[in-house]
Amino acid sequence: MTRKIVDKNIAYTGRVFELQNLEIQLENNEIIKRDILKMGFSGAVAVLAVTKENKVILVKQYRAGADKYLIEVPAGLIDEGETPEEAAIRELEEEGGYKAKKLKKLTEFYTTPGFTNEIIYVFEAFDLEKTEQNLDHDEYIDVIEYPIEKVDELDLKDVKTLVTLNFLKNKLKK
Amino acid sequence: MTRKIVDKNIAYTGRVFELQNLEIQLENNEIIKRDILKMGFSGAVAVLAVTKENKVILVKQYRAGADKYLIEVPAGLIDEGETPEEAAIRELEEEGGYKAKKLKKLTEFYTTPGFTNEIIYVFEAFDLEKTEQNLDHDEYIDVIEYPIEKVDELDLKDVKTLVTLNFLKNKLKK
Repeated sequence: MTRKIVDKNIAYTGRVFELQNLEIQLENNEIIKRDILKMGFSGAVAVLAVTKENKVILVKQYRAGADKYLIEVPAGLIDEGETPEEAAIRELEEEGGYKAKKLKKLTEFYTTPGFTNEIIYVFEAFDLEKTEQNLDHDEYIDVIEYPIEKVDELDLKDVKTLVTLNFLKNKLKK
Repeated sequence: MTRKIVDKNIAYTGRVFELQNLEIQLENNEIIKRDILKMGFSGAVAVLAVTKENKVILVKQYRAGADKYLIEVPAGLIDEGETPEEAAIRELEEEGGYKAKKLKKLTEFYTTPGFTNEIIYVFEAFDLEKTEQNLDHDEYIDVIEYPIEKVDELDLKDVKTLVTLNFLKNKLKK
């Protein structure tokens, strides 16, 4: 006996997500209502990138949900038709100003499985070449190249950044 | 020069969140639109709890956003008027069937700061006493008491669970 979605109504369609009212049939056949956000396209990516000078590439920008400026790893939504790998290469260059020649997938996760289907794919980038930031007209992003041995001193509040930098810390311990 | 929210319209009010259309004034005075979810109350909690038998308490349940059954640490929304600590004690008992006498805060983070204000507070629970699960009529949650030395073998897809169990893994390494 498992749950299943038995009815779906689209309550709102936005630029990035659609708000759906679901009716879900429970294990005991009872019907409950849940609101969820269905993200467009295939999710998002986050990138761990360390320069030849042993600095990790971080970005600081205003985040509308939190209404705060936060320090994060380079990240962004996967565009239509893009693979997660292509999105990771593109976002690292657009936000961070580095082009990576190689990627390794580190993990993937749901950010909030209770109410969105958003998945973030995390990659490590290798063979970085310095290029230039290439931001949209509405993006204002400061790049911070931060010494890897000091990442524990950062006040990080964004979960994808915590998970991504954990991979860096575990590597440094070895 | 920083960004600021200059206009706000509530597009949808749900059980757990409100969808807001924001107008945000950029660094160059341009106005952009963003949709965000404002979560009710003060956010959510997640709990790391290890029994005397060295088993970590996990829960498996259907998640409407992901439309999947996921294994997670005990977690839930903070109720109105509750502190994060009270919510952590309550959720561990309701979902996991253990009452904790002591808590230590491990971290806090935004799950998706780009489009929600949701914060999750993570606690470690101590001095556990076996009680009973106490679920809402619409909750069907399987408790899994899982040997701590095998947590690396779990296929975990929920980010709060990854972060919380990282604290456990780091403790085991010491």
